[in-house]
Amino acid sequence: MNIYLAGPDVFLPDALAVGQRKQDICRRYGLTGLYPLDNTVDLAARDSSLQIFKGNQAMMDAADAIIANLTPFRGSSADPGTVYELGYLAGRGKLCLAYCNDPTPYAERVAGLTAVTRSPDNRLVDADGLTVEDFGLPDNLMMIHALDLHGRPLVMPRKKPEDVWHDLAAFEECVRLAAGKPG
Amino acid sequence: MNIYLAGPDVFLPDALAVGQRKQDICRRYGLTGLYPLDNTVDLAARDSSLQIFKGNQAMMDAADAIIANLTPFRGSSADPGTVYELGYLAGRGKLCLAYCNDPTPYAERVAGLTAVTRSPDNRLVDADGLTVEDFGLPDNLMMIHALDLHGRPLVMPRKKPEDVWHDLAAFEECVRLAAGKPG
Repeated sequence: MNIYLAGPDVFLPDALAVGQRKQDICRRYGLTGLYPLDNTVDLAARDSSLQIFKGNQAMMDAADAIIANLTPFRGSSADPGTVYELGYLAGRGKLCLAYCNDPTPYAERVAGLTAVTRSPDNRLVDADGLTVEDFGLPDNLMMIHALDLHGRPLVMPRKKPEDVWHDLAAFEECVRLAAGKPG
Repeated sequence: MNIYLAGPDVFLPDALAVGQRKQDICRRYGLTGLYPLDNTVDLAARDSSLQIFKGNQAMMDAADAIIANLTPFRGSSADPGTVYELGYLAGRGKLCLAYCNDPTPYAERVAGLTAVTRSPDNRLVDADGLTVEDFGLPDNLMMIHALDLHGRPLVMPRKKPEDVWHDLAAFEECVRLAAGKPG
């Protein structure tokens, strides 16, 4: 089984090493991890970003499943590139798994970053008056329920690990689920 | 042609009115706009968020195309729920269109929200040391190039309109493109 390893991990200073650790874990469960940075891209080329897209899409098309890292990235939600990929693979009918290393509910995350109040019509709103989703879910309901219906429920640690970008326990749990191994 | 109207518009105080304006514009071009808030959901039910997901997914499955509002939402990127939907419809092979009412390149957007510097290995990085995409694109390359390859290039105004949530000129341009009408 080929698993597309989606996540903002590619933006880490040690992006290659993290990808190798993830691929090693996949291998231990008899699975193959496909990591975006394994694509060959000419970063000096004018169309380098398009090359990255095409490489990632070919990798996704070759995958049987996705494990997406939905840990909040640069704000209260998951990395949008990763979310696009989760949607793409759900649309293609592939098995969808994901983890998030911050179990804080979404409304709490937003409240930690900006003023959240009650509007006169009793909506939870941010400083711009836009509704803050308040279903007790860790992120936007589209991603969370996509996992419920197209794969396995989001995997989260009980407590946020000290290093959210390098703790791979929740990732490994996703790999275990993908491999169909009992916990 | 049925067009799924994706966007954080559903979080606006006047979400229903904005949806009606978008549907009116679609109608003028001979198209049908499918707006998530037209689904019937029991918001008092325990599984209300799942009901919303199922309604949105059924609407997406009934759509021939998507017009996604990728205007930055609560940070430097598009709303992740909208991005999931764009990915889902790209995966389903539907026509993908989108607009963004803020033409600021992504790296500039991030720099406006947090400290952005050069790392010793010459990457543009945020305060956490994570790479800031710097291709001159307005958002993560996965969404931008998905539009190039699965539909029409992202539509943006030359200048950010005063009211990014209610100015529908860029939206109407997407509708015009979907209808195949000359500009």
